Amino acid sequence: MSNEIMPNFLKNRAFLTPDRTALFFNEQTLTFKELYEQSYQVAGKLQASGVRNGQFVGVLLKNHLDTVVILFALQLLGVKTVMLNNRLTTVELAWQLNDSQAAYLIMEGSYLEANEIVTLEVTILKKEELFSTDFELPVIQEEICLTDVCTVMYTSGTTGNPKGVLQTYGNHWWSAIGSALNLGFTDKDRWLCSVPLFHISGFSILIRSVIYGMPLILHESFDAKRTIEEIQSKQVTIMSVVGTMLTKVIETLEEEFLPSSFRCFLLGGGPAPLPLLKACMAKEVPVFQTYGMTETSSQIVTLSPEYSLTKIGSAGKPLFPAQLQVLLEDGCMAGPMEAGEIVVKGPNVTAGYLNRQEANMDKFKNGWFYTGDIGKLDEEGFLYVLDRRSDLIISGGENIYPAEIEAVLLAHPGISEAGVTGIEDKTWGQVPIAFVVQNKESIVSEEELMQFCLANLAKYKVPKKFAFINKLPRNASKKLLRRKLLEILEDGRLER
Amino acid sequence: MSNEIMPNFLKNRAFLTPDRTALFFNEQTLTFKELYEQSYQVAGKLQASGVRNGQFVGVLLKNHLDTVVILFALQLLGVKTVMLNNRLTTVELAWQLNDSQAAYLIMEGSYLEANEIVTLEVTILKKEELFSTDFELPVIQEEICLTDVCTVMYTSGTTGNPKGVLQTYGNHWWSAIGSALNLGFTDKDRWLCSVPLFHISGFSILIRSVIYGMPLILHESFDAKRTIEEIQSKQVTIMSVVGTMLTKVIETLEEEFLPSSFRCFLLGGGPAPLPLLKACMAKEVPVFQTYGMTETSSQIVTLSPEYSLTKIGSAGKPLFPAQLQVLLEDGCMAGPMEAGEIVVKGPNVTAGYLNRQEANMDKFKNGWFYTGDIGKLDEEGFLYVLDRRSDLIISGGENIYPAEIEAVLLAHPGISEAGVTGIEDKTWGQVPIAFVVQNKESIVSEEELMQFCLANLAKYKVPKKFAFINKLPRNASKKLLRRKLLEILEDGRLER
Repeated sequence: MSNEIMPNFLKNRAFLTPDRTALFFNEQTLTFKELYEQSYQVAGKLQASGVRNGQFVGVLLKNHLDTVVILFALQLLGVKTVMLNNRLTTVELAWQLNDSQAAYLIMEGSYLEANEIVTLEVTILKKEELFSTDFELPVIQEEICLTDVCTVMYTSGTTGNPKGVLQTYGNHWWSAIGSALNLGFTDKDRWLCSVPLFHISGFSILIRSVIYGMPLILHESFDAKRTIEEIQSKQVTIMSVVGTMLTKVIETLEEEFLPSSFRCFLLGGGPAPLPLLKACMAKEVPVFQTYGMTETSSQIVTLSPEYSLTKIGSAGKPLFPAQLQVLLEDGCMAGPMEAGEIVVKGPNVTAGYLNRQEANMDKFKNGWFYTGDIGKLDEEGFLYVLDRRSDLIISGGENIYPAEIEAVLLAHPGISEAGVTGIEDKTWGQVPIAFVVQNKESIVSEEELMQFCLANLAKYKVPKKFAFINKLPRNASKKLLRRKLLEILEDGRLER
Repeated sequence: MSNEIMPNFLKNRAFLTPDRTALFFNEQTLTFKELYEQSYQVAGKLQASGVRNGQFVGVLLKNHLDTVVILFALQLLGVKTVMLNNRLTTVELAWQLNDSQAAYLIMEGSYLEANEIVTLEVTILKKEELFSTDFELPVIQEEICLTDVCTVMYTSGTTGNPKGVLQTYGNHWWSAIGSALNLGFTDKDRWLCSVPLFHISGFSILIRSVIYGMPLILHESFDAKRTIEEIQSKQVTIMSVVGTMLTKVIETLEEEFLPSSFRCFLLGGGPAPLPLLKACMAKEVPVFQTYGMTETSSQIVTLSPEYSLTKIGSAGKPLFPAQLQVLLEDGCMAGPMEAGEIVVKGPNVTAGYLNRQEANMDKFKNGWFYTGDIGKLDEEGFLYVLDRRSDLIISGGENIYPAEIEAVLLAHPGISEAGVTGIEDKTWGQVPIAFVVQNKESIVSEEELMQFCLANLAKYKVPKKFAFINKLPRNASKKLLRRKLLEILEDGRLER
């Protein structure tokens, strides 16, 4: 019972270590006390604007000090925050806001045009207007219950429509604790965050900062040169990266080495290419491979320090509070080096998807979450991730779900069938490409489809190429065989 | 739900980091894998001896590698371990074993005489015989639930009879995590334990070892010279001590300094005398004062690194997951520097006393545990402990409860009233002394009372002096005023 009750994270941290630095953002620095005071002010302004405990509230914000303050203000009020990817189109935003029944959308004033905003059926609180609202004494949630929902982050799956992943305070807490038990932590630690705060990769750093009492160094976006400079000047010890970021850092490093105070890159967002890991070793850049997802509130598997050289290419072993199995199609445990579906369990694993009873029944069995990802375990229990959910495309750290793009394409009147898959890309790791079958009576151009996708999908999801074919590869029960799409590509059967 | 489920601590640690050192004991060293394998063997022998999941089992063992193995073997089987103080008399042991309905007593073969053993109504498993039992394949508790009871430790209170404090896996887990969040931890950490494993001060180090993956350096007993030597030779970073131990270390240190790898002494077991803290500062010995008790599964309040100089004498602030208040007699919160009862809350706080409904009703209100200790908070929220439970005597780190000694004295046919209090002692901090009123018809000698106490009480609880008086100081409702006993002493009214 009281195992689940804890003091409000930020308020408690500000009480325990008020004078420690909480945040570096450009030239600004905030202590935990200052961060709490600013968040308290904004909580009062949010309340004056009508925001209330228990509501779902969307946030559409960039990586910025203001965003950190707003996110903690929402926690102080006990609001469930819907973290919106700021690369989404208005159509996608409207869908997620409606699905979560968000009462408000807090957003950067510059983000959307007036004609776009009117399509969102939600009360808009532009950040600049919110900040100039009069303060009223907020009702602060002094204690949190670990089972309460803190955030909702949308991910898509094989079904097309994104699903809201419920992340409780407990999920975030246990993720932070599991990471600390694996990596250790000291009062010298400083974590650099240039991944988006609206993704679990970024948000989890925010949570670690307040639980550990550790400074967060926040960048608006990733820049390899600035990364290297600030690792030096701000004594960064840990940084979360995806493969494309790490590649750029390594390219930019040239002859230099990182300072000895730097402990590691935490590498997520899909399996790392071996040449990259080897390049890191050559430059004495310590890399910890990880495996995780929105549903596990960031990393759930990480390679421990002592194995970083002997188990290169492995994502490691589960964090202490978590468990992992690889299951064959018949539900039996796979033997060593036998590929199967990765299933996980632990207090960092989501309680489920928002209002998605069917998906919840499908993905959770006996307390285990079925990731859909394919992997294998070696004799010692080290995980090798072979493939993210059979059809997931990972492009520059963003997850792209073919089914979501296919659903958009099928909504175009000129298209009768659509199949999307990923192809390798030097810069982004992977990019999506589309295969479409046209209605007999219509002729659609590639340019037209491109524009149609741009209006309905975040830019990174828009296929880089549209291939017109007569028939999609399907199995006997007419299920689309996305892997076969690549064969069409290789066969050169692409041209119209 | 699955927030409360975790893999078995030792088995998981042996899986995650099999080759890390778990334990140094004299000339022996065990890795986590070896510790698991030995514990698994002993679990098989315990099961072959009849020990089963869910039972209460008493252990009466010294600080030894074997004890560590047995304690983890019991966890592997899912047994609730009753940790018995090996300084208790047979009468006290019998009481605790009976109160906990222990099915077995695992003990050092040398500890009790045959005629003592027969008075214990429990099946005895002598360690040496247990170890030579044939192994059978044990049924291992692969997962633990954080709400399951792991250990029971007896403490007395104002009512005389000791109460069994239920400590769940969650209590121990959260205590370890709270400590790590405060002290930080790295893969260089090694914790020296020379406090008894049967006390929470020692047992909590065992739990931290397995949760952190950190070597435990176990000493059979405390020796200042050996402590200093091994802090050097074994690169100890942290050591748990009580005041008397720290005093001896400081005295023994003389001209030397501790190596820079040594991080701190964690000082518990009652308020520290200011001269000791100053002597530590003079020798550059870092000390973290703590406040905790069996019911909080070790420290719940600790002074953070950055305040160790400015807040000398304070026990600090609560660990991150915990909360603390000081309440006046009317139940209102005390103002700054106003003394009142310390009440605490958090996932490390016991779920209650075994089979003690009344005490549980009395000490737990709205999720808060009423410690009975007196303290005050300064403006910034730092705790100063003024007095342990009004009448608690702390002698060399052992808690002594006057009511328990009084109950024994009153059982003597020649005594009609008894009052016990503590007086200052250079070596032990405090020692108990007794004030007794004789029955009119009898004459009892001090020597006779001493022998009577030795037969019924652990030696450290036996009063160092017995004063015969005509009347005990009592208030209007005849409640004994233990503090007034000291005045009698000071008045010189002691002689018969």
